[in-house]
Amino acid sequence: MNDPFTPNEIKIAVIGGGTGSFTLLSALKNHTRQLAAVVNMVDDGGSTGVLRDELGALPPGDVRQCLVALSDSPKIRDLFNYRFDEGTFQGHAFGNLLLTALEKVTGNFSEAVETASEILRVNGVVIPATLDNVRLKMEWPEVSTILHGERVIDADFFKYDPRRATLSLTPSAAANPTALAAISQADLIVISPGDLYTSLGPLLVIDGVGEALQKTDATIMYVSNLVTKQGQTAGFCVSDHAAEIERFIGGDALDYVLYNKQVPTHELAQRYKEENAFLVEVDTDVLQTKKYKAIGGDFLGAVAEGHDSDVLPVTRSLIRHDSDAVARAIMDLYANSQAGQ
Amino acid sequence: MNDPFTPNEIKIAVIGGGTGSFTLLSALKNHTRQLAAVVNMVDDGGSTGVLRDELGALPPGDVRQCLVALSDSPKIRDLFNYRFDEGTFQGHAFGNLLLTALEKVTGNFSEAVETASEILRVNGVVIPATLDNVRLKMEWPEVSTILHGERVIDADFFKYDPRRATLSLTPSAAANPTALAAISQADLIVISPGDLYTSLGPLLVIDGVGEALQKTDATIMYVSNLVTKQGQTAGFCVSDHAAEIERFIGGDALDYVLYNKQVPTHELAQRYKEENAFLVEVDTDVLQTKKYKAIGGDFLGAVAEGHDSDVLPVTRSLIRHDSDAVARAIMDLYANSQAGQ
Repeated sequence: MNDPFTPNEIKIAVIGGGTGSFTLLSALKNHTRQLAAVVNMVDDGGSTGVLRDELGALPPGDVRQCLVALSDSPKIRDLFNYRFDEGTFQGHAFGNLLLTALEKVTGNFSEAVETASEILRVNGVVIPATLDNVRLKMEWPEVSTILHGERVIDADFFKYDPRRATLSLTPSAAANPTALAAISQADLIVISPGDLYTSLGPLLVIDGVGEALQKTDATIMYVSNLVTKQGQTAGFCVSDHAAEIERFIGGDALDYVLYNKQVPTHELAQRYKEENAFLVEVDTDVLQTKKYKAIGGDFLGAVAEGHDSDVLPVTRSLIRHDSDAVARAIMDLYANSQAGQ
Repeated sequence: MNDPFTPNEIKIAVIGGGTGSFTLLSALKNHTRQLAAVVNMVDDGGSTGVLRDELGALPPGDVRQCLVALSDSPKIRDLFNYRFDEGTFQGHAFGNLLLTALEKVTGNFSEAVETASEILRVNGVVIPATLDNVRLKMEWPEVSTILHGERVIDADFFKYDPRRATLSLTPSAAANPTALAAISQADLIVISPGDLYTSLGPLLVIDGVGEALQKTDATIMYVSNLVTKQGQTAGFCVSDHAAEIERFIGGDALDYVLYNKQVPTHELAQRYKEENAFLVEVDTDVLQTKKYKAIGGDFLGAVAEGHDSDVLPVTRSLIRHDSDAVARAIMDLYANSQAGQ
């Protein structure tokens, strides 16, 4: 299936993985049925990590979240997200086990995702960014420092500026041809919010992905994170996030950068403080000098209770985008950009 | 769903569980789409046992096999039967995990089976004989001896004649109303081959099942086992098997008993010998005195390689019925019985 879209509708490719893609896909599917989710494949923590280590499986966690976002069946969606809460299977999301079992049965992760899509009645397609079994590596060449593995890097408090580090995959990963086709055929590409060094970067540095993003005729938007990540992106403004995205891509491919300009209520600000979460600052002066257009919106969502991440032991920020507002902004922006042409 | 059948077709209820029901359902589905499998719910060994012990789940193993037998999707059938072959999940059939996860998500094993049926595209219905979480008990009151649990009883070499033992469920089990409806509404009921004390008996002694079998207008056939079970039914002839079935039912409910009369080839006889498997003897003289009609057929199938049982550590007989021949005999017999009325 090298042809991820059907004709005569607006084709949107969402690039990312994890919660950022999940919430964005959940909202965008109300605007088009032509959605392709291109998914990061370096997760090696939690349930996913056990399946990789013990069974040599490709990482199912991020793919599962995107499948669930696009599913039409609430009952089977609950099943995919169900986590066994005791015994041998404790902490494992059922959907992860399903994808791994399907990979074993079909001998092929792509076919596993397709079959899971049928079971979940998915609208759109979920495309693993690579089908190679790879691990993430982050290297500061100047100081000869290397971190190995997504889980390790995710939990690390960087000693050195991550902007001076190179991200790579080991062994080197070939892009999934269907992922490249989605990038090339899309009308609109949205890079979802997500961790720079453990989610978006590892996808964008796959051989061929950056080139495809620079070549495509699609409009490319990046939705910047709401908050910085302690020990990793503390102090990063909106333009710093976008700069890292373009560094991974290998060129100034972004047409639009969407960021939050909403000021939190006093109550919300207190919650953020308790969580040690700091909103990404908007550096308007710098943003105005960029080739992309930076567009602010009121994107603060309710504070989520609990967490739906794949990595049980690690606490993630509970601050979320108002994904409906983001999706509306994306669609309006795209419509205006087309009208202006 | 108290109405397991749709109108205007021959309705067959197959009673049993495990390999016997699996092979019979696989063959009968070529003759009618009106199949209901009523399934034994006392398994507590292997993958099923772990899920029961750790998660308090109802036993999925026999239900899974019947679902797979009735499935229209080869790919998803393979998925349900896939067993993890290493790591934490080694030995677990994926379909068991799916049924257990669905039970947790829906809070209800019946709904779990219905949803699994949708996923597997099942023709017909699979009906747990009871929805109570029960264990099997086998008791020789005269000698104050009790065995607890299906796995234990299955592996036991009985010290006393099992025909003097009572089988019961603890705590006592109520029949699933849908199972009783299937028995009452069926045109034809087939009691599949299977272990007397760990598969068929535990189902037939559920409160209400025996009464329903005695009350139903359906034609009732029992397909006798091919071989005896070492340490349990050694020396049992066809009539002994049928007598135990009627003892569990609590009355002479059987209309027909089908047995194998085919003599094995020399080569096949050798294989049986190597396995310590003894064909059930046909005691024609006794059978002629019974209320039921005993009908012989050429039912010996090929010797199966490997084994597809749910209990990994226990070796099961590899001798199988020629299930297509059995299904044809059942359908012919039913047609003749109707023509004769």
